[in-house]
Amino acid sequence: MKKLALGVDIGGINTAFGLVDENGDLYAESVISTKKYPFLEDYPTYVRDLCQAMHALADSLTFEYELTGIGIGAPNANVHKGTVECPANLWKFRPEDPNPDEARRIFQLADDISHNFNGLKTIVTNDANAATIGEMVYGNAKGMKDFIMITLGTGLGSGFVANGEMIYGHDGFAGEFGHVIVEPNGRECGCGRRGCLEAYVSATGIKRTAFDLMASMNAPSHLRDIAFSDFDASMISAAAANGDPIALEAFRVTGEMLGRALADIVTVTSPEAIFLFGGLSKAGKLLFEPTQHYMEENMLFVFKNKVKLLPSGIQGKNAAILGASALIWQTQQH
Amino acid sequence: MKKLALGVDIGGINTAFGLVDENGDLYAESVISTKKYPFLEDYPTYVRDLCQAMHALADSLTFEYELTGIGIGAPNANVHKGTVECPANLWKFRPEDPNPDEARRIFQLADDISHNFNGLKTIVTNDANAATIGEMVYGNAKGMKDFIMITLGTGLGSGFVANGEMIYGHDGFAGEFGHVIVEPNGRECGCGRRGCLEAYVSATGIKRTAFDLMASMNAPSHLRDIAFSDFDASMISAAAANGDPIALEAFRVTGEMLGRALADIVTVTSPEAIFLFGGLSKAGKLLFEPTQHYMEENMLFVFKNKVKLLPSGIQGKNAAILGASALIWQTQQH
Repeated sequence: MKKLALGVDIGGINTAFGLVDENGDLYAESVISTKKYPFLEDYPTYVRDLCQAMHALADSLTFEYELTGIGIGAPNANVHKGTVECPANLWKFRPEDPNPDEARRIFQLADDISHNFNGLKTIVTNDANAATIGEMVYGNAKGMKDFIMITLGTGLGSGFVANGEMIYGHDGFAGEFGHVIVEPNGRECGCGRRGCLEAYVSATGIKRTAFDLMASMNAPSHLRDIAFSDFDASMISAAAANGDPIALEAFRVTGEMLGRALADIVTVTSPEAIFLFGGLSKAGKLLFEPTQHYMEENMLFVFKNKVKLLPSGIQGKNAAILGASALIWQTQQH
Repeated sequence: MKKLALGVDIGGINTAFGLVDENGDLYAESVISTKKYPFLEDYPTYVRDLCQAMHALADSLTFEYELTGIGIGAPNANVHKGTVECPANLWKFRPEDPNPDEARRIFQLADDISHNFNGLKTIVTNDANAATIGEMVYGNAKGMKDFIMITLGTGLGSGFVANGEMIYGHDGFAGEFGHVIVEPNGRECGCGRRGCLEAYVSATGIKRTAFDLMASMNAPSHLRDIAFSDFDASMISAAAANGDPIALEAFRVTGEMLGRALADIVTVTSPEAIFLFGGLSKAGKLLFEPTQHYMEENMLFVFKNKVKLLPSGIQGKNAAILGASALIWQTQQH
């Protein structure tokens, strides 16, 4: 009988989910709102409604199959414990809550979902790790035992595979490569420190770089007509495609920061390849060329010209669902 | 019957070896000169003489035992291939060699040794990786699945264990943490680049820091009476113990550089503990206190006050032999 896994991608706005087979083919998908359940006390209703919607999707298929498990990608997920811990944008305290103790915001998501599916195997991990496993199971990292995945979205996430296994580390939080400090006393980062890689290399990072360059350069640019609040990274890609000098320099600087950081990460992890995934990576050679150049320029000699820098093979709108579902196929191999 | 492994530590001056059991007890040890065999054409004789000396040691025990394997720690070793590749200080070209092609200096050490022992299992890895496995098998990392080992000698080596396994990476060279760039355009490093961690944190690194501080500070110091060529790192430890202000500041700066770098490595690898091993680490709290302070100061919030910074449990003169022998016991578990 055909085997399918449920892949679930929990974002701040929506929760998307779908039924996927071992080859990464998607048979059905659906979505519920996440932001309709903003507060801590909404969490049980969210779980109930999500499970109802997943059951409805599972029942909608017209052929017989075996549901083998549920893989979930979510912010601040701990794969060891099956929890989502203190996510910044989910199930928050009401402002008037008399006891905003963060220990109350540790959600036993894997168990809570599994209970609604007769104890079915349910795994939760963070979005970047889910994308990494997706790359390994369905994408361009098939057959590779040692690689790095960099996900470029609003922030910078990463996943790290060695000896054919995801490296979660002791606390389940390994691979927070976006928070390596690349510029001591540099830009303020959302984590409370300064100079983290994601403050430079991410959708928000390249936007900050563009504003920095508008201050330091005199070149004319259409970007100068847009206020910071109205600005998003896709405008830089569009401007760069038209030869805008500020936009082109913003990509060069972003590639330099990323390339230098990747040279260091190679020194520590010796991967076969590094994959770039998500928003910014779609800019193609605008980002890949400077990144490759500065990575090689800063590379330790034993690694020079050996490590491949590649686009992800699971780009596209369903990548997050595919990645989450891959959690199930990956653990079946063990 | 008792099982023993041969542990071999190949240094630029001497090659030390010993017979070790699964508990890390050393039954016999011996040494031959390495520097008596300086040139490429001396390599076969070196292998022959080393194997003869190891056979003699193995025959010297007065009880019956089974020899289970030979573990070797050596510079520039590739564990995947069993080779030692282009080591800077071993089996060099004669100055008059008409064809100094580095491809001729890839030594099939594991095979060459194994042939002299009837095909006995022989594993070669770099010294820092051998020390790491020694820590896991005999030392303070027993039972840990995720940890980092930092070896502080003339340079800075490292080893990285995740999911209970050594991470060698695709090329077998993972864990070259000493060559993470911590200071762009900083001090010249032996690797040909600038600003590598080992140019700051190592016996030679702290010596360079002391000379930097003699230039920038006015404080009196006995260290000012010693020429650069006559200077070694142990003089800084001795001076610091007497309250010498340059020496104390040199340790603080070294701890700051190491602590900052460790905070980043934790962000990527999420270890349970970090072990410091070798020369500089024997300075005890002179090094540990500032390292711990700056590591925590720079740590990403999810890791704060969670990662242990500990001294190695296999310090002492036989640590390198123990570490090398542990290669055999570690692979037996698989």
